[in-house]
Amino acid sequence: MIVVVCLNPAVDVTYEIDSLVPGSSHRVTAQHERAGGKGVNVARVLHQLGRRAMLLGFVGGHRGAAVSAELEAAGLPARWTPVSGPTRQTVTVVDSDATVLLEPGPVASAENWAALVAGFEQTVAEGADLVVLAGSLPAGVPTDAYAQLIALAAARSTRTLLDTAGPALRAAVRAGPFLAKPNLVEAAALVPAALVPAAGTRGSAAVDAVLAAGARNAVVSEGAAGLVAALDGQRYRVRGPALFGNPTGAGDALTAALAAGITAGLPWPAVLRNAAAVAAGAVSVPYAGEFDPAIAEEFRALVTVEED
Amino acid sequence: MIVVVCLNPAVDVTYEIDSLVPGSSHRVTAQHERAGGKGVNVARVLHQLGRRAMLLGFVGGHRGAAVSAELEAAGLPARWTPVSGPTRQTVTVVDSDATVLLEPGPVASAENWAALVAGFEQTVAEGADLVVLAGSLPAGVPTDAYAQLIALAAARSTRTLLDTAGPALRAAVRAGPFLAKPNLVEAAALVPAALVPAAGTRGSAAVDAVLAAGARNAVVSEGAAGLVAALDGQRYRVRGPALFGNPTGAGDALTAALAAGITAGLPWPAVLRNAAAVAAGAVSVPYAGEFDPAIAEEFRALVTVEED
Repeated sequence: MIVVVCLNPAVDVTYEIDSLVPGSSHRVTAQHERAGGKGVNVARVLHQLGRRAMLLGFVGGHRGAAVSAELEAAGLPARWTPVSGPTRQTVTVVDSDATVLLEPGPVASAENWAALVAGFEQTVAEGADLVVLAGSLPAGVPTDAYAQLIALAAARSTRTLLDTAGPALRAAVRAGPFLAKPNLVEAAALVPAALVPAAGTRGSAAVDAVLAAGARNAVVSEGAAGLVAALDGQRYRVRGPALFGNPTGAGDALTAALAAGITAGLPWPAVLRNAAAVAAGAVSVPYAGEFDPAIAEEFRALVTVEED
Repeated sequence: MIVVVCLNPAVDVTYEIDSLVPGSSHRVTAQHERAGGKGVNVARVLHQLGRRAMLLGFVGGHRGAAVSAELEAAGLPARWTPVSGPTRQTVTVVDSDATVLLEPGPVASAENWAALVAGFEQTVAEGADLVVLAGSLPAGVPTDAYAQLIALAAARSTRTLLDTAGPALRAAVRAGPFLAKPNLVEAAALVPAALVPAAGTRGSAAVDAVLAAGARNAVVSEGAAGLVAALDGQRYRVRGPALFGNPTGAGDALTAALAAGITAGLPWPAVLRNAAAVAAGAVSVPYAGEFDPAIAEEFRALVTVEED
């Protein structure tokens, strides 16, 4: 089983309207609602890959109940820790453009965090193949929250895959996760100066920074340009045809497919090839948490994985 | 007991942000959430006036559960009919201005409508002093929905107070409600030509139109300019100092206070004076469903109610 920590899940609401005019009233012509958040998206893709993922995180209020019910109905097991504030909602208003409103989400208390940690320890003790730590931290939890979970997993010899950004990434990577997977922009939070190099060397400089900061392995996404990785001391470059579409969904699918490949015990080149293909299959789906298997299959044949 | 029909309640969400820029992403700096909809606001003000109100309407999904739970916790009894679609959400984005996104709400099926009508008949049979019909009709219910409920109430000699607009108002007023309470703009839906007269006579022309369309009594709100009414054959003009604030809240408070005054058996001039005062007290509260009793008390002394 793969444990996916998603501390700050969301209800993602999309409104289609004719044209957004600040200061006026608008009738929503079509609407969609879906449980989201980075970890939820990762768990959905793992589910689509046929892998069992157990979600852990905080939920609160009627939106938290909706997230919990939707994912349960989708066959995704979870162990949610209740908090008193409401689970965040993101509203995306689509006309010819997309305008996004992001709620901060609930504030977790020290007791909430202790309850989550206890649930995490129990879940890992029950037998986890890998722990994925995905997304931002809710207000109230310590900045080193992921570092604490990485240390607890390591104490049980359970590997961790870190997919976060900013201060949460900086604090967590020091705890020595098995694999950190930032994109170029996120990796800049680790050693900004290292990313000044010319365009062609940015990815490997970012990998250097991730390893220097403490991660045992690194995969850095360069978006449409591919992946750069350092895995068990070997460097890799992954390249494929450029695709345009949904980058958020692609990043979360990449994380899921890396987790699936690692726990399947595949050799690194196969892990990277599969992960790049699944990410490409997610680019073409307009919402996160799902990939198009046909596109993934086509892309797999076109990907090159080279030792560097 | 006063029955308040609120077919399309809402979750009213307010987001405060720095500045709304279409096409970009915004962090919400403060947020509020509150059960709303015209009938819910009316029931809240009746509750504040110490009167027992029973809400009837449709709720669906996690938002419907939230509306139901919030109002129950607030001590407002209700008999909700479940529908399969989600209760609507309204999002108001406040920067220096207010931008509003209005979901249409769920579609009620013929079975949903039949279930609501059955609940209505039972509630009225249990003993209702007055029925308030407030707000717009959800998709799927017949345009003459309120007319049907007015006829059912009349069959049990129960009076009805109609507070709606557009086609729903046109269809309902024909069924002879005890009192219809449109504002000037809403009354224009009845006989537009009647409202062309000079500014000073618009209110009484609107009252004429409401009575001609079938209502037994009429109160027409002219906003800050006051009220014009025709009650048991007598015309009244209600005037007070102009107030600036929340007009939606004022309209719903006016309806609630009219219902409270009618069921208390007060003479019409007292009903009008109290209702104008409560409406004035609601103008100063930034959200609907509540009035400031101190402002209402001050205003009551300043209101003039004149026979016309």
